[in-house]
Amino acid sequence: MSIPSVSRRGQSTPASPIRKLAPYADQAKARGVKIYHLNIGQPDIPTPPEFYNALQKFDDKVLAYGPSNGLLSFRKSLKKYYHGYGFSHIDEQDIMVTTGGSEAVIFSMMAVASPGEEIIIFEPFYPNYNGFARMAGINLVPVSTDPETGYRLPSIEKIEEKISSKTRAILICSPNNPTGTILTRKEMEQIEALALKYNLFVLSDEVYREFTFDGNHTGILSFPKLSQHAILMDSLSKRYSACGARIGCIVTKNKEVMETILKFGQARLCPPTLEQIGASAVVETGDKYFNKMLAEYKKRRDTIYQTLTDIPGVYCKKPQGAFYMMVTFPVADIEDFSRWLLTDFTVNGETTMIAPGPGFYATPEKGKQEARIAYVLNTGDLEKAANVLKEGLFAYRET
Amino acid sequence: MSIPSVSRRGQSTPASPIRKLAPYADQAKARGVKIYHLNIGQPDIPTPPEFYNALQKFDDKVLAYGPSNGLLSFRKSLKKYYHGYGFSHIDEQDIMVTTGGSEAVIFSMMAVASPGEEIIIFEPFYPNYNGFARMAGINLVPVSTDPETGYRLPSIEKIEEKISSKTRAILICSPNNPTGTILTRKEMEQIEALALKYNLFVLSDEVYREFTFDGNHTGILSFPKLSQHAILMDSLSKRYSACGARIGCIVTKNKEVMETILKFGQARLCPPTLEQIGASAVVETGDKYFNKMLAEYKKRRDTIYQTLTDIPGVYCKKPQGAFYMMVTFPVADIEDFSRWLLTDFTVNGETTMIAPGPGFYATPEKGKQEARIAYVLNTGDLEKAANVLKEGLFAYRET
Repeated sequence: MSIPSVSRRGQSTPASPIRKLAPYADQAKARGVKIYHLNIGQPDIPTPPEFYNALQKFDDKVLAYGPSNGLLSFRKSLKKYYHGYGFSHIDEQDIMVTTGGSEAVIFSMMAVASPGEEIIIFEPFYPNYNGFARMAGINLVPVSTDPETGYRLPSIEKIEEKISSKTRAILICSPNNPTGTILTRKEMEQIEALALKYNLFVLSDEVYREFTFDGNHTGILSFPKLSQHAILMDSLSKRYSACGARIGCIVTKNKEVMETILKFGQARLCPPTLEQIGASAVVETGDKYFNKMLAEYKKRRDTIYQTLTDIPGVYCKKPQGAFYMMVTFPVADIEDFSRWLLTDFTVNGETTMIAPGPGFYATPEKGKQEARIAYVLNTGDLEKAANVLKEGLFAYRET
Repeated sequence: MSIPSVSRRGQSTPASPIRKLAPYADQAKARGVKIYHLNIGQPDIPTPPEFYNALQKFDDKVLAYGPSNGLLSFRKSLKKYYHGYGFSHIDEQDIMVTTGGSEAVIFSMMAVASPGEEIIIFEPFYPNYNGFARMAGINLVPVSTDPETGYRLPSIEKIEEKISSKTRAILICSPNNPTGTILTRKEMEQIEALALKYNLFVLSDEVYREFTFDGNHTGILSFPKLSQHAILMDSLSKRYSACGARIGCIVTKNKEVMETILKFGQARLCPPTLEQIGASAVVETGDKYFNKMLAEYKKRRDTIYQTLTDIPGVYCKKPQGAFYMMVTFPVADIEDFSRWLLTDFTVNGETTMIAPGPGFYATPEKGKQEARIAYVLNTGDLEKAANVLKEGLFAYRET
C-alpha cells in the first residue's frame, strides 16, 4: 500500500536545534544526572502575582471568543506601556494581540513576503525564525556577523550585496537572541537608510527590550521616517516571565499591514482569552518588576561572563542585553561536545546542557565552535554549570 | 516616499465573511438596536465549572513553557477520550495539542501541501479554511454540493474530476460547518476509496463530533486502511463551550506527519499552558455534559428548522448535526438582504444577523440565496430571531 509523504515544506522545516539534544538529556536524567539547563530561555523568575490574581477575578460563565485583534482593555494597557517608552503616536488600533511572539513573527513574515520571496537576516539568529520561514515558504537570506566583533552589524555594503529583487524585508532582533548584542542608534540608522533606499519592511523583534545592561536600546518605533516600513514584533513571555501564557503583539502604523494581519488573525479567530486577562494586569505593574529582574540578570550576566572567559581558550565579548550569549569554545565540533556532556560526563553527578551554534546559522559550516548560553539560573547554579563546562573541556580534549 | 506593499499572499487572503458585517452591526447597536447573533458560532452554554476549578488549583510560581506537543497529562486525558469512542489504537504520541482547532487545520494543511499544491474541499465550507490556505500558499479546489440534496457528497466521478497531479489531500468536515450535514458511512467509504486510489491524505475536521442529532457520526479514525492517510483535526472550543481557550489537537498514526507537525510546533514553542490545565479537567467530565448540551441543541435545531421552513419561500433540509444550517432565502442577493436587516429593519427595536452564503463558497456566484444560521441562542430568542427574518423578508421584497 502506498503512503502519501509529507510536503516538501514540511521536509525542509528544521527540527528545533535548541530542543534537539533533549533525548540525550532525558537519558541522563533517567540515570539520575542533574542537568543545568543553559540551553533554553525559560526564566526561573516568578511570574508577577498580579497575573494569577486577575484570573481569580475572572467570572464570565462562558469562556467566549475574544476579538481577533485582542481584547480592547488589553490593547489599551499595551498602548500605555508603549507610551511609557515615548512612543506616544501608538494607538489601540496600531496594536494587534498575537498568540505569543511566535505568531507575531509568522504573521509579520506572511504579511510582507509571499512564497519564494526573501527576508534579510543577520546570523547567528533565533532558529525558530527559520522554522517560520520554511512554514511560510519564505527564504531567509543570511548576512553573517562574527564573534570577533561581538556580532556587530557588518558594513552597509555587505548587507546591500544580499538584497535582490525578491527581498521584501530586513529582520532585526535587539537586544539579540542568541548574541546579547544591542544595536546602536548608528546601526539602526543604517537599517533605516537601507529600508528607505530599497523600500523594504523592517521586522523588529524587541521582546528583550527591558533586558538592557549596558548602553541604550533604540526601538524601531523611534524612527519616524520608517512609520510605514516598521513592524514591531513583541512578546510578554520573557518580560513578565510568563512563557506559557502565549501572549505577544504586533505594532505598526502601516494600515495595509495591520489590515492584512487582521485577516490572518480572523482566520485563527482570537488569541487566548484568559491569558490576555492576566497579561493585561501584569502590563500595568510597571517598572518595579523590571528593575528588580534587571538587577538579577545583570548579576547573572557578570557571573557567567567572568567564569566562562576565565576558562583557557573560551572566548566571548561581554553581552549587553537579553539573557543570552554566544560563546566560542576550544573544540572542533560543538555538537559532539554538547552531546558528550550529556552522555559521558558529570561533575558530582551533574552536567550542563548548552545549545550548539550551527543551529543559529543559515550558512553551512558556521558556528561549529560556538554555543548559545541562556543565563536563566541563579548565580550559584551558573557557577556550577560553568564549572562543568570547564572540567568538561579538560576531560573532552583528553578523549 | 515609497511605501512597501503587503505580500500577494496577504492581498489574496479574504477577510472573514462571518465578521464582515460587523461594522453595520456596531452601528445598529449604537442606535440602540438589539441584535440576535445567528452569524457566529459562539455558544451561550456555560463552560464546565471544572475548567475554572482546575485553574484555581494551579500554583506553579513560574508560568513556564510546556512541551511543544502539549502537556503529557492532557494528552493522556485526550487519549482516554478517544478510547471512549472505540479508537483504542490511539496513544499519547499520536496526539499533538494545538492552539485551537485553527492551528490544527493550518499545521495539517502545511504538513501535507507545499505552496502551489492543492487540497480538494466540498463547498459550502468553513470560510477560515480559505484563510489558512491563502496564508500557506495552498489552493483549495472546490467540489460543489447543493441545497437540494441537503449538501450530500456528489458522485465519486464528480470528485475525481477535480483531482490533479498537484492534489495532496481531501478535506472533510462532519458534522459539517456550515451545513449541519453528517457524512454517512457510505460517503466516508467513498472518501476512503479515493484516498487509497490516488494516495491522498484525508484531513478530517470533527470538532462537532458530539453534536449529532440524527444518524451516527463515523469518524476518520474508524478506517484502519487509512491509518497512514488520516489526519484528524479537533478542537475543544465547541464541545466544552470554551471557545476563548484556544485548545485543539491533531491525531494521526502517520509518524512522518506527526514529526513534521511537531517541527512546526517547536517553532511556535507550545500551546497555552493554563488553558491546557483547564481543558484536561473538562475532558475528564465525560458524557454527562454532552448529553445535557445535546438535548438543548436538538430542541434548538427543531425550533429554528420549524420556524424558518414555515416562512414562504424559505428552503432547507433538516440539518443532522453541528449547530449550523445553510438556509436558502427567497432573495436575489443575500449579502444585500443581510446588510439591510442591520441598516434598515427592526421588529420592536430588534433585528437578526446572519452570515451570507457566498463567503462559504469558493466558486464565484454560488450561495447568493443562502445564509448560514448558527442556532446558538435559547429557543425563545431563536423564535424571535426567526420572526425578524420572516417579517424582514416581507418588508424587504416591498422595498
